[in-house]
Amino acid sequence: MSLNPNNALNFSGGPGALPEVVLNQVQQAIINVPEAGLSILGISHRSDWFENVVRETENNIRTLLGLPSDYHILFLQGGATQQFSMVPMTMLRGKKHPAEYFDTGYWSRKVVTEAMREGPVRVIWSGEQHGYRRLPTDEELDFSPDAPYIHYVSNETVEGLQFNRILGRDDVPRVCDMSSDFLSKPCEADKFSLIYAHAQKNIGPAGVTIVLVRDSVVQNAPDNLPSFLDYRRQVESHSNFNTPPVFAIYVVLLVTRWLLNEVGGLENMAQINQQKAKLLYGLIDGSNDFYRPWGEAAFRSDMNVAFNLPTKDLEALFLNEATAAGFSGLGGHRAIGGVRASIYNALTLGAVEKLTGFMEDFRFKHHAKY
Amino acid sequence: MSLNPNNALNFSGGPGALPEVVLNQVQQAIINVPEAGLSILGISHRSDWFENVVRETENNIRTLLGLPSDYHILFLQGGATQQFSMVPMTMLRGKKHPAEYFDTGYWSRKVVTEAMREGPVRVIWSGEQHGYRRLPTDEELDFSPDAPYIHYVSNETVEGLQFNRILGRDDVPRVCDMSSDFLSKPCEADKFSLIYAHAQKNIGPAGVTIVLVRDSVVQNAPDNLPSFLDYRRQVESHSNFNTPPVFAIYVVLLVTRWLLNEVGGLENMAQINQQKAKLLYGLIDGSNDFYRPWGEAAFRSDMNVAFNLPTKDLEALFLNEATAAGFSGLGGHRAIGGVRASIYNALTLGAVEKLTGFMEDFRFKHHAKY
Repeated sequence: MSLNPNNALNFSGGPGALPEVVLNQVQQAIINVPEAGLSILGISHRSDWFENVVRETENNIRTLLGLPSDYHILFLQGGATQQFSMVPMTMLRGKKHPAEYFDTGYWSRKVVTEAMREGPVRVIWSGEQHGYRRLPTDEELDFSPDAPYIHYVSNETVEGLQFNRILGRDDVPRVCDMSSDFLSKPCEADKFSLIYAHAQKNIGPAGVTIVLVRDSVVQNAPDNLPSFLDYRRQVESHSNFNTPPVFAIYVVLLVTRWLLNEVGGLENMAQINQQKAKLLYGLIDGSNDFYRPWGEAAFRSDMNVAFNLPTKDLEALFLNEATAAGFSGLGGHRAIGGVRASIYNALTLGAVEKLTGFMEDFRFKHHAKY
Repeated sequence: MSLNPNNALNFSGGPGALPEVVLNQVQQAIINVPEAGLSILGISHRSDWFENVVRETENNIRTLLGLPSDYHILFLQGGATQQFSMVPMTMLRGKKHPAEYFDTGYWSRKVVTEAMREGPVRVIWSGEQHGYRRLPTDEELDFSPDAPYIHYVSNETVEGLQFNRILGRDDVPRVCDMSSDFLSKPCEADKFSLIYAHAQKNIGPAGVTIVLVRDSVVQNAPDNLPSFLDYRRQVESHSNFNTPPVFAIYVVLLVTRWLLNEVGGLENMAQINQQKAKLLYGLIDGSNDFYRPWGEAAFRSDMNVAFNLPTKDLEALFLNEATAAGFSGLGGHRAIGGVRASIYNALTLGAVEKLTGFMEDFRFKHHAKY
């Protein structure tokens, strides 16, 4: 198998890097999945082999999170975006009291727009007045006991802001979009009624979204939804209501095996991820205002390190030189520009060390220019 | 690259076989897409490279079909099943006159169920009384000029029944589910207002669905749909409203290149597919009632050859011996059982010759047993 050193230095916001060992297994599977004797692209979704893939992936996620048995695990299409609508279709339609949503950044704003089509929504806190550079403290939040549920985004991928605590009240269902930090650390999943996460950050390729949903939510779903948007139908058919994205689910299986067997679980993964983030933020904070972090220190993300340089010209130069040095995906999201180093699970500490080395050199060369 | 002879004998109903040359290119792309220098699984959907992938795939489909410029080509998630709902959400909600649907087999029955959630539906013809062994003739059909549209399934994958003509009236929009025969032959796409097809039969892996939609349909779409179910939003964003299934679309690109450059277009593809079907049906029809075709001769599919053997025991024996001989995916769909040889684009004439050889031998060995 030919190695490609560029994959190890892919700091893209997603789809992002996958572990080298997983890429090698996937490459083999394109021609021949050992247990099935066929290309992964030509295996029936109704085969025993694929049923086992779904079951093992579910079990691995259950083990990694310590998830209780009254949660269903689904593998759906449509991205987190489909969940922006499925959640309120299921939990908000016909409700009198508003669901409570957060406006903490680019992604949570999109969620609010879709929820408002389905029922009453109250935005409980907005980061707009703070330029989306911070998240709320508990003192700023006043949750209603009557809300059908609260919804928040655990990690704002674009701005690089992450909650390091669980929000809300225990007597109101919590729904969380964990797209960009799912399986990057333990998450007390049993405090949530529904968690969703697309795969293309930490756990697989674009094309599959994982939903963890408590059985009571499924039981109370309305019964007039289009079948593919009905969690009940998806649960009954075990993520095989219509042809699922076989390939993408198989890659998620390989990543969960890697997390369990090579990384050794989510505590270990979190420790590695924290080390990586600490290294980057340490360099940024010690850069004498050359690298300027987007988010306030208390709310910075361990997954997406967003920052600016003193001038637009220096930012452009930085991105050009970084590309020339083999780093990719460092351009900030089009919504806010700047630089963003996404350091998802598969990005190694070694890769981050290379990046900080590059950043130190770049500062040394250019700090006198402004 | 390691070859796997089993892939060439994959007669699965789908996900099915892909061309060997495409599998080899995909295998390379898992580690390194030459033009991008990254794994296909880690390339941003916002990159110039991926924008070119979408554009070239669109252009290839446009060229293959001779599609006029007032059609949009979309690459969506959710399978044909999502289209079962998106079509009536877009074209039927709030309408007084019923849309006209066909009940010609397993898949068209599912489409009707979902359409009825969205608006008035009239089933214009049902194959139920015929045991779903035939399709209607023109004399049996009475289309209304007032229908908002007609909908039919061009090829019933389960029963192996295929329309070899275009249905309906020119003054009523035609919508067609071509999931199992799209790009297997020319199709006069400009006679339809909307065509959809999931990829996992003839053109790629599970996880992406192609939609061809006339601009007037998009312009008249309601404006209160969830964004991801709104063709208008998908058209505006060029199939990049939210993260698309990058990998699956890339495989479709490779398949369309193969169709254009190696097969030489859809006329050639159709000729090859007809040869394959003729060979199989010829053997079946000449088997002295040992192999018993499911469908009436005039309506048999060139894509899915469904048949029975004289007894259930012989069918089980046939499938066992076929598996042992290296053929896979020959079991009939769980809805009707029996045997089904799916001979999509990537299944070669040579593979079909091997199958007919096997079938002749099997009959010779076992025809005295019943």
